[in-house]
Parts: sequence; C-alpha cells; structure tokens
Amino acid sequence: MKKLLPLFAAILISANLSATNTLNLMPYPSEVKFGVGKFTVDKSLRISIQGQYNNRLTPNVGRFVQRLSKRTTITLDRDTIITGKPNATFTIAVNRSGIVKLGEDESYRLIIDSSRISLTAETELGAMHGLETILQLLDRNEKEFFLPAIEINDQPRFAWRGLMIDAGRHFIPVDIVKHNIDGMAMVKLNVLHWHLSEDQGFRIECKTFPKLHEMGSNGEYYTQQEVKEVIAYAAERGIRVMPEFDIPGHAAAWMVGYPKLSSGTDTNRIEKYFGGFRPTLNPTERYTYRFLKKFFKEMCALFPDDYMHIGGDENNGLQWNENPKIQAFMKKNGIKNNNELQVYFNAKVLDIITKNGKKMMGWDEIFQPNLPKNIVIHSWRGREYMEQAAKKGYQSVLSAGFYIDLFRPASYHYLNDPLPADTILTDAERRLILGGEATMWAELTNYETEDMRIWPRTAAIAERLWSPSGINDVDDMYRRLNIISIQLEETGLTHIKNREMMMRRLCNSYDVEPLRILLDAVEPREGYKRHGSKPRYNTESPLSRAVDIALPDAPDAIRFRLTLKDYLQIKSQNSYLTLTEMLNQWALCYGRVSNLAANNVALQELLPLASNLTQIANIAQPLLPMIQSGKTITAEEADAIKTQVKELAKPVGELEVAIGESVGMIVDALVMK
Amino acid sequence: MKKLLPLFAAILISANLSATNTLNLMPYPSEVKFGVGKFTVDKSLRISIQGQYNNRLTPNVGRFVQRLSKRTTITLDRDTIITGKPNATFTIAVNRSGIVKLGEDESYRLIIDSSRISLTAETELGAMHGLETILQLLDRNEKEFFLPAIEINDQPRFAWRGLMIDAGRHFIPVDIVKHNIDGMAMVKLNVLHWHLSEDQGFRIECKTFPKLHEMGSNGEYYTQQEVKEVIAYAAERGIRVMPEFDIPGHAAAWMVGYPKLSSGTDTNRIEKYFGGFRPTLNPTERYTYRFLKKFFKEMCALFPDDYMHIGGDENNGLQWNENPKIQAFMKKNGIKNNNELQVYFNAKVLDIITKNGKKMMGWDEIFQPNLPKNIVIHSWRGREYMEQAAKKGYQSVLSAGFYIDLFRPASYHYLNDPLPADTILTDAERRLILGGEATMWAELTNYETEDMRIWPRTAAIAERLWSPSGINDVDDMYRRLNIISIQLEETGLTHIKNREMMMRRLCNSYDVEPLRILLDAVEPREGYKRHGSKPRYNTESPLSRAVDIALPDAPDAIRFRLTLKDYLQIKSQNSYLTLTEMLNQWALCYGRVSNLAANNVALQELLPLASNLTQIANIAQPLLPMIQSGKTITAEEADAIKTQVKELAKPVGELEVAIGESVGMIVDALVMK
Repeated sequence: MKKLLPLFAAILISANLSATNTLNLMPYPSEVKFGVGKFTVDKSLRISIQGQYNNRLTPNVGRFVQRLSKRTTITLDRDTIITGKPNATFTIAVNRSGIVKLGEDESYRLIIDSSRISLTAETELGAMHGLETILQLLDRNEKEFFLPAIEINDQPRFAWRGLMIDAGRHFIPVDIVKHNIDGMAMVKLNVLHWHLSEDQGFRIECKTFPKLHEMGSNGEYYTQQEVKEVIAYAAERGIRVMPEFDIPGHAAAWMVGYPKLSSGTDTNRIEKYFGGFRPTLNPTERYTYRFLKKFFKEMCALFPDDYMHIGGDENNGLQWNENPKIQAFMKKNGIKNNNELQVYFNAKVLDIITKNGKKMMGWDEIFQPNLPKNIVIHSWRGREYMEQAAKKGYQSVLSAGFYIDLFRPASYHYLNDPLPADTILTDAERRLILGGEATMWAELTNYETEDMRIWPRTAAIAERLWSPSGINDVDDMYRRLNIISIQLEETGLTHIKNREMMMRRLCNSYDVEPLRILLDAVEPREGYKRHGSKPRYNTESPLSRAVDIALPDAPDAIRFRLTLKDYLQIKSQNSYLTLTEMLNQWALCYGRVSNLAANNVALQELLPLASNLTQIANIAQPLLPMIQSGKTITAEEADAIKTQVKELAKPVGELEVAIGESVGMIVDALVMK
Repeated sequence: MKKLLPLFAAILISANLSATNTLNLMPYPSEVKFGVGKFTVDKSLRISIQGQYNNRLTPNVGRFVQRLSKRTTITLDRDTIITGKPNATFTIAVNRSGIVKLGEDESYRLIIDSSRISLTAETELGAMHGLETILQLLDRNEKEFFLPAIEINDQPRFAWRGLMIDAGRHFIPVDIVKHNIDGMAMVKLNVLHWHLSEDQGFRIECKTFPKLHEMGSNGEYYTQQEVKEVIAYAAERGIRVMPEFDIPGHAAAWMVGYPKLSSGTDTNRIEKYFGGFRPTLNPTERYTYRFLKKFFKEMCALFPDDYMHIGGDENNGLQWNENPKIQAFMKKNGIKNNNELQVYFNAKVLDIITKNGKKMMGWDEIFQPNLPKNIVIHSWRGREYMEQAAKKGYQSVLSAGFYIDLFRPASYHYLNDPLPADTILTDAERRLILGGEATMWAELTNYETEDMRIWPRTAAIAERLWSPSGINDVDDMYRRLNIISIQLEETGLTHIKNREMMMRRLCNSYDVEPLRILLDAVEPREGYKRHGSKPRYNTESPLSRAVDIALPDAPDAIRFRLTLKDYLQIKSQNSYLTLTEMLNQWALCYGRVSNLAANNVALQELLPLASNLTQIANIAQPLLPMIQSGKTITAEEADAIKTQVKELAKPVGELEVAIGESVGMIVDALVMK
C-alpha cells in the first residue's frame, strides 16, 4: 500500500480532481490520462480474449456484451466474441488465472484510442473491473455511442471492500442477494459478508442440526443448494462470500431447536421484536463446544472462503449472571467477569475455526491481545477499536461509519476514510487496515426495500475503499452517484423501481406525482430514532409506509442544494429558473398531497409534513428574487427566518423536511457581508 | 355448464351490468348482491380456518394477510390467524380437500357484513379464489380501509383457464415464471402451459438424454429441481403445470445433440432467427420412438399433471419430401402424404403418452377423427378448428384470438368468447369446449419485457374465461384493468416498473417524461409486422428500443378515448379540461422529444413518430373548442381532416400513433347531423 501512495498523490494533483467532473466513473480510477478522439461502439465490435485466465472471464465478457447491447440497442450477438487477435477491435489480455481471495491482484490497465480498446490485467479479476469501467465510460451523442480516448491504470486502495447483508432480521431471498452481488461487481466491491443467524431467525439449512433452520426460522432460510449457487455466482463475479454466525449473543433462534445451548431458563423463541435479548450460548458446557465443532465443520466445508465471521457482539451477559452453574464455573476457573468468560469462549471457538482451516473474524468486542495475528477485528463501535487493534498488530476491517441501515446521507459514509490524512497509525499499522464494509442491518428493511437501502449509497462507500483518498469532493460524488444509480438497474436491482411501485400501492393510483414531490424532499430520521415510534416495529411490520419509501439522500433536496451552490457562485439564469421551479412545486405540495389524501387513510400521516414543506417553500420563494436583484437583509432578520425554517424542518413522526439547510444558505446569502 | 347459463343470464339482467361500474373485480363474479354497510379492516382482524382442506390453504391465507398488511400499512402479524371460531371476525370454511386437476370444484361463496366476513367453499381452491376477490374488494376512505357489505356466489364458466409461457425462443428465468404464477392466481387462471422446447432452445434438464439441454440450449435451461419447485409453487396456488414438447417440427434444438432424430441431412444447430425451419423428427425410424419412449417416461414422471402437450404444429414436411427412405416407407405402408405420415407419428406418440398414464394434447394440426376421445385439441389457427373438433366429439381449448404476443389490444382478446351467443355448437358440443389459453410466444420478448407483454391484458382474458358471457363492456373492462394492473405488482410482476427502468436506460436519465408521453400514445404494429423490420430480429436482439416499451394498449390513448366518450355524452367540463390538457401535452411532444434526443442516438428513430403525434394534436386542438361552442363542419371538411389524420397515424417503423380514431370521433361529432 505504502509504495503506491506518492504515486496517487502526484496524479491527484495533476489530473484526477478535475477529471471527475467530466467522467462518470465510480469508483474513480487511481490514474487517468485523457487522449484525443473517441472509439465508436457499433456492430463491428469484435472482442478477443488472450492469455491465461480463469474461465470465469468468459461469462463476464458475455454479460458485458449483453449490457452494452441493451444500452446501445445495437444487436451485438454471439459473433462479437471471436478467437484470434487480428480482427479484434477490443483485446483483453490476462497474464494468469486469479483466485478469489483476500489480497489477489485486481489491477488493470485500459487504453482506448479511436480504433482500438486494449484491456490488460495480471488476473481476470482485474480485467473484470476494467469491463465495468468501460461500461461506465460509455457515452453517446446524436449520431453514435462511443468511448473517449483514454488511458487508465487502476488498482484498489484497500483489499477488503465489502457489503454485509443481514438475512437474519428479515429474510432476503436468493434472487435479491444475487442482484446485489451484481451491483457489488459494478462498483468493484469484492466481499459479500452474509449475516446468517440472528435472534430473529436462523437462515441456512444445517444438515447436522436441522432443527436450527426448521425451528429457528419461519420457514424462510437458504438451502445449501442455494448457498452453493450464491457462492458460485459471487465467485464468477470475483466476489468472496464470508458467512457470519453470530455467537454467543444474538443467537436466540439457535436455542428454539436446541435449548441445551442456552445459558438460562428463559422460554426459547424466535424473537419478533428488535434489540438486545437475553438468550446466550452457554460457554461452560461441553455440549456447546461439541455442538459448535460439528456445526462449524459443516459450515466451513460449505463456504470456501478463508474467513469465518463469528459475530461476538452485544452479549449482555444477563443469563450468565443469573446461572449459578456458570458463576461456579467462573469462580473455579478464575474467570473474573463476563468479558473474560467470552474471551474463554472465543478461544475455544477460535480453536474450532482454525482446525477447520479458516481464519476467524469477529466484531470488535472479540478483540483481546492473546489472539493469533491472522484474525480480523471488525470495527463497528468506532474507528478507535480498529486503531487499537492495529496498534497491537492486528488486522481489521472498518464498518463504523459505514452503517447504511441508519438512514445517513451518502456524503457521511463517503467521507469516512479508514485511513484519513491525520490517522494516528504508523505506516506499518496502516498496512493492517484491510478495508471496510457497508453494513446493511435489516430491522427496517425487507425484500421490497433492501435494494433501495443499499443503493446507490454503497457505491459511494465502494469509491472510498477503492479510489485514492484525495478523491473526496462530495458534490461531484453526488453528481456521479446519480448516473451510476441508473446503471445499477441493469443488474435487476430494484432500488429505483420498487420505490415507484410502493408509491402506486400507497396511492392506489398511477398518479403518484404529488407524493413523489413530497418524498423526494424529505428524509427518514437518522440513527435509531425510527425505533422509538409506536406501535413498535417488529419482524412482521409491513414496511410499506411513506417513511419506507423516503431516502436517506432526498434527491430533490440534493438537486436543490447543488443548483443553489451553482447559482450563488455564478448566478446562472438556468439555475435560478430551476430553483424557482422547485420552490413553486414545493409551495403547491401541501394542496396537492391533501387532494391525494382526501380518500386515502394511508396518506393522512403525511399532511403535517407536506404542510411544513410548503411553508418552508413559501418562506424561501420571495428570498430568491431578492438575491437576484441584489437586495439584502440584516443579520437579525436572517436569524429570525432561519429559526422559523429550523422549526418547520423538525421531524414529523419518522420523517423530516430536508431542504432547511439550503434555505439557510439563501438567507445567509442575503445578509450584507 | 349448461345448467348454469339461465342463472347467469338472470343475474346479469338484474344486477351485474351496472355492478361492474362500482366494483373493481376482475374477473367479475357470476353473482353479486350488494349489502348495506362496510367491514372495517384494522389490526383487530382475526381469521379462523374451519373444515377439511388441503394444507396449501394455510400459506395462501398467510400471503393474503401479508398483502393486506402491505396495502393497508397495518401490522397484521402472525397472531391474525387464530384457531377456533368464536373470536374470529373472518371465517373460512372448506368442505373437502381439493385436487389441482381439470374440472375440480373452484366455486366459493363470500358474505361480508359490517361485523363479519364469511368465506365458504367446497374445496380450498374455491376459498383461495375468494381471498383474491376480497383483496380486489378492499377499499379506503380518509379514515379507514374497508370491505363493502356484499354477497358473492362465484364459479368459473370454463374449467381450463390457461397462460402459455414460451421459454423456447427466449429463456424465461424461474423467478419470472413464479411471479407470473402469482399473477395468474390473482385473476383466477388455473393452467400454466409451459412451452419447453423449440427450434431456438431445449429448456429443461433431461437426465436420460442430457445432450438435449446441454447442446440444445445456450446454457439457459431449467434444472429438474427448478421444475419441481415451479410445479410445487403452482400447485400451492391452485394452478396446474402442463409441459409442452413440440414435435415433430419446431424441434431443431433436439437434433443438435441427437442428430439421429433428424429426417434430413441439414446441419443441426440451435436456430438463431425465427420462423419455420426444416429440421423435423424422423417418424419412420424405430430409433425415434425408442428415444421418445424413454424421454416421455422421464418427463411424464416429472410433471404430475394429467395432460402432456406434444405440440405438433407447423411441420413444413420439406425434410420428409427429400428423404428417399421416408418416401419409400410411406409407399410401403400406404401413407399418401405428409399429413398422413404425421397422423402415423401422432398415433405412436399417443401410445407412449397413454402408457405413461397421461392424456395427450396438441395444436389443432394433430386433429384427425381416429384419436381417442380423451385427447384435447388446442385450437390456434382459428376457432373453426375448435368447432370442427367439437362436432366430431372432441374436447378443445381455444388459443386463437388469445395470442397476446401479437400486440393486439386487450379489447380484442376480451371479446373473443369461446362460446359466443351465436355459436354453431349444440349444447352437447359446447360442453366439449374446455376453455382457453393466453399464448405468449417469445420471439420479441425476453426477461425484461415478458411481464409487460403478458400483463395486464391477460387479466381481460381471465375474465372472459371465468365470468358470465354477458360481462363484456369494453370500456368498463379497461377501467377495471387499470386498477388490477397496480395490484398485480404485489406479486413482484415487473410489467409497470420495468417499463420505467427501460425508459431511464434509453434516455440515460431520470427525466423520461417526454418519452413517456410519446410512448403512452403509440402502439407497436400488430400481428407479425414487426418481423419485417431490418435488421431481422434474432434471439440475441437486445429488445431494448422504444418499440419494446410501447404497449399494445397505449394508456393515454385509452384514457383519451374514454374521456372523450364521456365528454361527447354528457359534455362535462372536467372531461373537456382533461382532453385539452392531453392535447396540449401531445402538441408539445415533438419539441420535448427533440430536446431529449439532441445528444442521444438511441432516440433519433422516434422523431418522425413524435412529429406525427404533435401534428395530429395540432389538428385536434382547435376542434375541441368548436364542439364546446356548438360549431359544425361539413361532411367534406370532416373527410379531409380524417384523411390527414389517417396519414399521420400510419406506422413509422414498428410503431404507430394510437389517437387517430379518437380524433376521428371528434371530427364526426362536429358534422351537422
């Protein structure tokens, strides 16, 4: 890693920062040199693959051709891929077969001029990244589709670039997992972390202990056949699949079928609500380890990845405190507290995992300094845990700051650099930071909304983990994210289209426009605040209300902010018109939503929110022409307006209007400097 | 059947015709009696299931609750379904376990008053239809979701109500097949006819002859595991799955792996283009029958349905004519022509099918009078073949008129009654008409567009096959179809949302509005005309152009027509405003599409079409106010305008503007009577 840093820095200064403003690449490559001219994409395209490579490359080139064909509407049929180089207009050359494992070479070089495309890579994994870059480079004018002449040299900044899917709290069907793997490949992520067991469900067929999935789920679980298919599907796309079995806490579902695993006498059941629960594996009984030995033997054989995630988080220890036998065991063995008891448990589990040829990973609670150095600490409570581990010589992966379930904007995650310029880590310690993972906990998402909670924000995280650290312009990220989001639909992802479907269902009509205008200007409350609402959410809540369709990045609020910035800088008339138009729409919103809600109980809860939006718009409407005509207001007047707007931007239920800050910018611009 | 007809007639006169104007049911029930009051749907709903029934009912009630919960946004969790009757507000009572086979009792009775819902049925298959009716009855006002007080007695008019999916020409992935099964259940269809082999692909794993799927497809085929899953999925929803293996023609893909089956010496290959092809099974070789014996043994065991469809259509006989051995065989056995040779072949195949315990079905070419009376003739070339078969005492199913691949409007299919009032069939012969099937041939559809080609039109066909023949008001059908179409999205069907996705891809933007306005006013050319376009379509055409997003029922053209009818009848001001607004939008369309296409080669082909739409709108714009103000024109002036409009409504490429007829109605209304 270190060796590359000066190179990155140099390039950043020379070209990249401005480059992102003309290219729509995400993640942005480490080195880009612009050429002159363009390569026309038409039916004469002929692709030749050269060299030594794993046979996963061929289907990837096939899908590349299919997507290119769909997007261009040009029939590029089976004859597009040819053998032999002479007639090829696009040559892919690979040096050796890649292995889908941590640290494999994923670099590629792409050279496009007006007559040829050349894609070279050490392994086909790099070449596959290059294919995605080409699809992002594809441009069009009134006459043709084309690729700009360019030279790109690219490799990842971090080797571990993951997405965690929580299938425990809500089951996520196989086809959705697959679409997400395709989405991951599009933005060069390479680890699917599959959270397979939770208090709310055990989600994978276990042949050794079938009551795990039979009694530990509501019938919604992955068969081993399906798991094998997902692993193969991911491997074909260059993506590792690491399973997580969260123990000793978060394991209530295990004990429904196997109550002997429990540390307590609580009734064992699949949890319906969310939060921390009492059921915890009993770390003092030999039964537990005999069970885990057989269990992990089966699962380690099923999942080929080198790593096995054992969770280890949020054990509240209540059952341990209350169990006299456990207390006696601790006394006898000199175990002073629950933390030490979990260390004891982890050591036993580590032994099992290691004997099955795997390396262990766990949430940061598992960290303590006697562990072997090849384990990986997964930092979720804060980056300090990652840094502590590194200081002690341990590898880690960052998820703190990448919790995409918490309805935070893409910008928040985007700027969460595992190794910021001011990191306290030494060079050697920095090498221990393997990367990061977007973490999609599933309390408030199900099969309908999973995609729209993951995408497009995860593309911004993918860029953080792949691209040089200097690529960090938030506005430009949003500009590109908007474009990438449409391309992500090519994988079957439903992040845009399910939103519209859900609006139609909510409105019972095709005419969802007033609702869309409202929802594109509001955001769900951030963090864990939605869990405070009544009735309390549970695993069977329909998640079909307006708040479930609202996005963490209100699209129109972002558009308004970016347009406003542009207007305040260069006072373009176009921007002024756009802003005026948007304010007008918002000003009409309350009336239109009221009409829509007139015979629809499901929309009633939105009226106060729509009212707030309209009131804010009413406040902002006269201010914009004042800027235009050079009028000013006093600081006191400004404060008064901002207080009013702030009040109206406060949460209503689980939603809040997202344009308050932008209106504040308008107000500030009116104050005489 | 006959016994019910007078009853239907009586009810139609009394209530139903007007009833469809207030209820959004499709297919409309055979008997509806309106009550007073309404049943409020809230979280106090408690459902109890009583009686004897197949256990498929329980998951169906589960899905009913889930859909109700999603639509109402009310959490209706696992406690909604209770055991024991006393606390239930909704009782389902079933008399006996149903069998998913032809002719099973599917009737149900539904009674809703302000405090209770009662659903009774002979079998759970009827009860499941009743659940769908309840979901269609669900209504809302500003305070609550509710069901109207009502009594419904319902049963199907025809026992065979099918949808054929052609997975041969384009492979249709399993999840799409499943969504379509859900859609079928929503509109009370009960047969999935699965067309599994074609010249362009053999689409099912065959264990006896693995080269069938290995060499006869591009790797896209259903595994037997998947087939079993689909059969179980359909059975749970009360739907039969009948496979079709089309022989002796349409079988090119078989011969790639097994050339000995061929009647000729042509090179065997998977066909890439569409149409009729030469490769035909050799009906004179014992090898063929030995092969088919083993083949059908495997497939008859895999598919539990009583029927096996052997295709039998469009054998062009060329290979038979050219093969001296076949000619010699015919001479020796006194077989006079190819038709007789196919009769010979069919008799052999019939023997195989029968010995495997199945009844044979085939396209109408297979019909000849020596066949046993339990076979089924599938009429596709015209209803006369169905009638001929009935006259000879044979059962048949109608698909002529239900070819939904031909881009014909829903109204065309809706009015295609298998037994119209003026049928030439006697009562006894009428009983031989089992029903019909919507037939989705897949030359011009693939995984992205399959759903939007099937739905919502197939719901209109479902009504034709289920409801009394007197339910045939086209305008009201369109009104209800519009509502049902949104509900169909609950199954995961992509018929609405993929359209929007494809527009975004084509426009490379979220702003697809101008394209949507254009596409909602145009239709693909009907029949087989699209196949005349250049370059010729093949199995690898991307099918991502505008014509692939255009619908056989242009939604805005229908809306305009219905609004216009209303306006011409009662001159409502609302209708006038809607019409004016729509014309204004169309008048602006060319300019807006031109802007959209300015940098987009993929949209260039639409400019002449947009121009035509705008010109027609320009012609119509001044006419509407003339009606309003009572002005008139002469018959000659009217003719001149209509000629002009007709010219502009002519096809441009594969599309045509669909508002010409409505503008003609405006013109006619201006002519002094």
